[in-house]
Amino acid sequence: AEKVLRFPGEVGVTMWEMGKEDPRRVIHSIKVGLALTLASLLCLLESLSQGIGQNAIWAVMTVVVVLEFTAGATLCKGLNRGVGTLLAGLFALFVEYLTADRPMPRAVVMGWTVFVIGAAATYMRFIPIIKKNYDYGVMIFILTFSLILVSNYRIDNTTKMARDRFYTIAIGCGICLFLSLLVFPTWSGDDLHKSTIAKLEGLAQSVEACVGEYFGDDQMKEIQDELSKDSIDQNCIKVLDSKYTDETMALYASWEPRYRGNCYKSPWQQYVKFGVALRRFGYTIMALHGCLHTEIKTPPSVRALFKDQCTNLAGEDLNTSLQSQPQILSDSMNRKDSRI
Amino acid sequence: AEKVLRFPGEVGVTMWEMGKEDPRRVIHSIKVGLALTLASLLCLLESLSQGIGQNAIWAVMTVVVVLEFTAGATLCKGLNRGVGTLLAGLFALFVEYLTADRPMPRAVVMGWTVFVIGAAATYMRFIPIIKKNYDYGVMIFILTFSLILVSNYRIDNTTKMARDRFYTIAIGCGICLFLSLLVFPTWSGDDLHKSTIAKLEGLAQSVEACVGEYFGDDQMKEIQDELSKDSIDQNCIKVLDSKYTDETMALYASWEPRYRGNCYKSPWQQYVKFGVALRRFGYTIMALHGCLHTEIKTPPSVRALFKDQCTNLAGEDLNTSLQSQPQILSDSMNRKDSRI
Repeated sequence: AEKVLRFPGEVGVTMWEMGKEDPRRVIHSIKVGLALTLASLLCLLESLSQGIGQNAIWAVMTVVVVLEFTAGATLCKGLNRGVGTLLAGLFALFVEYLTADRPMPRAVVMGWTVFVIGAAATYMRFIPIIKKNYDYGVMIFILTFSLILVSNYRIDNTTKMARDRFYTIAIGCGICLFLSLLVFPTWSGDDLHKSTIAKLEGLAQSVEACVGEYFGDDQMKEIQDELSKDSIDQNCIKVLDSKYTDETMALYASWEPRYRGNCYKSPWQQYVKFGVALRRFGYTIMALHGCLHTEIKTPPSVRALFKDQCTNLAGEDLNTSLQSQPQILSDSMNRKDSRI
Repeated sequence: AEKVLRFPGEVGVTMWEMGKEDPRRVIHSIKVGLALTLASLLCLLESLSQGIGQNAIWAVMTVVVVLEFTAGATLCKGLNRGVGTLLAGLFALFVEYLTADRPMPRAVVMGWTVFVIGAAATYMRFIPIIKKNYDYGVMIFILTFSLILVSNYRIDNTTKMARDRFYTIAIGCGICLFLSLLVFPTWSGDDLHKSTIAKLEGLAQSVEACVGEYFGDDQMKEIQDELSKDSIDQNCIKVLDSKYTDETMALYASWEPRYRGNCYKSPWQQYVKFGVALRRFGYTIMALHGCLHTEIKTPPSVRALFKDQCTNLAGEDLNTSLQSQPQILSDSMNRKDSRI
């Protein structure tokens, strides 16, 4: 019984901490609520004036599906949705035009068209480049195309329906883009930049801690205490497992329309390459750390010979240069990008 | 001009090779086409008999959105969609009941309800456990809830509309589940098993090749020629980068209703843990391989001392036991699982 009573409290605490950890989550939730309300009220207005009518629910649907956490993701989905709908509408009109004067029963034509187009478009979704960038657009294409053909069978005024639906989806996309690009925007690119910095720092600390542990240095004892064995591993594993999130963030970031002050388009693909290099470095640290726990050890007298160099390298040169990197990171990446 | 002419040919070749590489892709495409046609024809029948009417398009929509490549993914999405729709319907009726006799204008009530529920549900999507398993369901909940409330404002017969929509979505889910579970099903679990085996074999070959390169063994020369430096790295990196795909496959596999002959539920989480262990092993091999290219090398006379042991270990014991693993892999995992 106590557990049941405690449950809501625990959920509340989790919720609160989640919000404290990243306040942008709260902002995003409020934005979604706002967008939904706007779209719903728009539906009401439209239905009162009998303008767009039944199609107005598509605005609500677009808002729910398109509005994502980061601006890049929203833009990617919104454009995919818009273009997919437009193409599907045009294609449906084209099919309509081709089959208008044939003597075949319309149900047969419709069945075959839906089958062929559905299968072909689904197969196209397996092409890597389409899967990566336009998967959602192709899905919307299939969806809209079938829906228009099906509705079309009953309603004769296809052109008007296609136009109305396109308008409402455009309104929905407009609300989403406005809220995600202009009202407290969350940029994928910033997240990517921050996570790259965090990874650099984590690796720098790990190297320092490793060297400290190896030479049993007193100076390093403090850092070592902070960073126990587990946290060295944790830092590395976080870096090593970051491939998927990095690539997703870079993909969305590449949709974001942000030209920085210096007129370069931010080189997100460089961040991905840099991430690959960091992961390589991470493997080495993992191996280095594994070596600390082998049974065969170099005697302390021998260690003393190269102690200073190593400590300097790890503690000052490497660590400092890694930690000063963030400030110059994006600049140097820009320079690299413009040179290529 | 030549490039333009060659383009369709290249696309055709890519398409063909994609199909040859994994014929299940072709099957999946045909299945989607079939499901779409079924759902569309159902819409026609229904609209002719004036039964479900306008809501019938929801069956088409469900098919497009729910039918995924593997059975587990389809089941996961289908159940999420079904439950999300049901809950949203019930909730909408509840809100309706609460606000029925209030003197406030309905537009205000609706606006606030949509805002609060939308924001709260979106915030819930950030909770890790919900994000992992039920993200899609919560999205559908928000969508259906707003749509019902909005439509409701115009149509008074909410109950009938909610019921019709639920029926059509159930029909759509039914078609999808039938096609994905019973007609040439593609199981996530099988893919996970196969990818685990491929990773084991890749690592075994890498270890063997590394040892062969180190000792410059003639016996090993053949394997070494096959596996150049790059391919050792490739094997390892494939293993190291497999975290995300593994976890996705295990997640979907855990939705798949397959109890093997021995009555155990297949222990997909064990595969994930095993994948973590394999990645750890992969780091070591990367480090080992890096060591081969250092400048400081053990003289051949010293190497000869431990050559036999190492070669035996890598070539026979390790490799053989790793390669015989696949056959006993799932059994031993089952045993481990039942022991826990």
